[in-house]
Amino acid sequence: MNCGDGIDTRLIEELYINLDPIQAGGRLTVDAMKAVLAYGDGYSVCDNCEKPFRLDCIKKPPLAKFHDDLATFVNMDVARLVPGARRGFQAVAGTVVNKGDPVLLTAFSHYTEFLSVEQAGGIPHEVPPDDSQIITADTVAVRIEEITRSTGRPPSLLYVEEVDYQFGNLHPVQEIVKVAHQYDVPVLCNGAYTVGIMPVDGKKIGADFLVGSGHKSMAAPAPSGMLATTSEWADKLFRTTQAKGDITGRTFGVKEVEMMGCTLMGVTSVGMMASFPHVRERVNQFDQHLKRCNQIVDALCSIDGTKVMSEYPRKHPLTRMNTTESFDKIAKTHKKKGFFLLSALRERGITGIIAGSTKVWKFNPYGLTEEQAQYVGDMFVEIAKEDGLSVQT
Amino acid sequence: MNCGDGIDTRLIEELYINLDPIQAGGRLTVDAMKAVLAYGDGYSVCDNCEKPFRLDCIKKPPLAKFHDDLATFVNMDVARLVPGARRGFQAVAGTVVNKGDPVLLTAFSHYTEFLSVEQAGGIPHEVPPDDSQIITADTVAVRIEEITRSTGRPPSLLYVEEVDYQFGNLHPVQEIVKVAHQYDVPVLCNGAYTVGIMPVDGKKIGADFLVGSGHKSMAAPAPSGMLATTSEWADKLFRTTQAKGDITGRTFGVKEVEMMGCTLMGVTSVGMMASFPHVRERVNQFDQHLKRCNQIVDALCSIDGTKVMSEYPRKHPLTRMNTTESFDKIAKTHKKKGFFLLSALRERGITGIIAGSTKVWKFNPYGLTEEQAQYVGDMFVEIAKEDGLSVQT
Repeated sequence: MNCGDGIDTRLIEELYINLDPIQAGGRLTVDAMKAVLAYGDGYSVCDNCEKPFRLDCIKKPPLAKFHDDLATFVNMDVARLVPGARRGFQAVAGTVVNKGDPVLLTAFSHYTEFLSVEQAGGIPHEVPPDDSQIITADTVAVRIEEITRSTGRPPSLLYVEEVDYQFGNLHPVQEIVKVAHQYDVPVLCNGAYTVGIMPVDGKKIGADFLVGSGHKSMAAPAPSGMLATTSEWADKLFRTTQAKGDITGRTFGVKEVEMMGCTLMGVTSVGMMASFPHVRERVNQFDQHLKRCNQIVDALCSIDGTKVMSEYPRKHPLTRMNTTESFDKIAKTHKKKGFFLLSALRERGITGIIAGSTKVWKFNPYGLTEEQAQYVGDMFVEIAKEDGLSVQT
Repeated sequence: MNCGDGIDTRLIEELYINLDPIQAGGRLTVDAMKAVLAYGDGYSVCDNCEKPFRLDCIKKPPLAKFHDDLATFVNMDVARLVPGARRGFQAVAGTVVNKGDPVLLTAFSHYTEFLSVEQAGGIPHEVPPDDSQIITADTVAVRIEEITRSTGRPPSLLYVEEVDYQFGNLHPVQEIVKVAHQYDVPVLCNGAYTVGIMPVDGKKIGADFLVGSGHKSMAAPAPSGMLATTSEWADKLFRTTQAKGDITGRTFGVKEVEMMGCTLMGVTSVGMMASFPHVRERVNQFDQHLKRCNQIVDALCSIDGTKVMSEYPRKHPLTRMNTTESFDKIAKTHKKKGFFLLSALRERGITGIIAGSTKVWKFNPYGLTEEQAQYVGDMFVEIAKEDGLSVQT
């Protein structure tokens, strides 16, 4: 089955329980699927564009209201849609980072955060984690002081991940922001794994900038995301163009420089908007998803030699496991080598862990039902037993 | 009928012949619609991502091949997908424009081109058109010399639109590039209205950078577009990250700085790819679309007082009309005022011109069948006659 030009129909979500670390929160809702069909055409949200001709002002479909709702949802003052969280990082870096500026990130910062610093000409520095793989406010303070001493000025920006991509650990962003502000360092809170998955309160965190990902955590098509800020920063971050044509005298209204004008003119914004009522609701069921995640982790850890590398009990479903002393021992003699694990999972209707990985690997069971979570845990145990590993009962 | 959260189902393309100036080339093909459904989920193209972990290297779905095909299609050496043409402008400006650099654009440059210059810190200058509203190579040379004299250096970049958004005129980009290169000024050719609509040959044009729009002209969902360049520029424009974590020692592989890593991870890239075989074919039927456009222009110009402001015969279907001496005279006494024209068109199943405009307005009949074009022309004439305007037969 294909949909033209050798593109196979994607059936992975229909055929498997998908534990992929980055895909769990971006599966469309049924409403988003309907919206995607209705708004597939290029500039489909522009039918009723009117003054001042900007995406966040469009009333039909209700994009203006959606922008307000998004800001409220994360308790920030102003929000904009962006083509992915990375484009939010880029907009913030483009606003506050000048060439040669020291910028502070963490040992868990995503590559796209580094790229945004590099694109703006900043010099990246990292904050190391503590022994529990947590970024602490104390270490942030130490690093700000070190950088200020060595470069002669404080970092122009601190990036901090509410939940990181490596361990899925929850970091004390509220304390971190408080400390950074004592040094007058503005903070970008990366909520790519949290906004749309668990409740996020921007004002409580105190962040100057809060970024979320539509395709990672808000059940939206790619590329989509949101960038929110405070009223203090809004005029700078969302500054409107000052450009003027020297021959024509043209000016360009209220188009925002860092947004490059409008951002998501069709399927992406409408998909995200159609999922939003569900997303707003689902963050309140976060505890259930955590419980199911812990259940799978418990099942995995019942297999002798298996360790959870993420903090435990889990505070976010993205989880890093170490099976060097369990599944990897099997891989050493199995005819399928390291591929045996994914292969055995697939035979049982489960997928999403990296093919060939049996030492350190991640999974994300977000969105599974209780029955599915039980099944996934049981299947890991069944595979372990089948291959002769001991299991604690 | 709605698709959740107060979003009405969009039926405009089903109910009307849509003459909207920017929407004509971005309507999805049937294959794209199927692909959009299959790949709606967030990171849907990432199921089989493998080393070196970059969108343009993914083999299934065949994104790697698609990138090669795109470069071949426009006869350039390397191509990348970007979230809209504007993000292509931004990537080029981020590469070649430094703070304070003079940059040359034209009197017809799009606001997003100006924004990309502003974001990079460049100072915009314009090239005026000649009396026929064409940008000429001679004037480009004059402006480069003027700017070099007044600022002490040549512009670091020239933007030139193959077809502009105001008149839809076709500019002599090949001659312009030749002249700019004599002054060592690199040229970005904006093909947002041409790539995917008419044959475009980047090597023949000689452009250093060629930008196309998926949602404007390649039957793709928004935001999507392409950025192509020569092998001479590829390493600079698509430079890979040099960032390194000072604590962790992490490096970030072959991720490209100006792309922010991967760009279109789902519905947008697959939608564009599914339409591509049709798009590649339709540019060869461009003459038919021009003929139909001229037919409508002829019908309009048969209405006394009506003028075509774009070059004529048309070389691109985006067309600017002046009906100050025809339809606007009706508007002055009509009970619906300037809204009578769109209203009368809508009663006849036609839409897409700006509500209330009866003086200067644009339309784009790209994609109409011969019968539809005939009908549109007839309806303009019928409306004119009904309102007492004289028509030449």
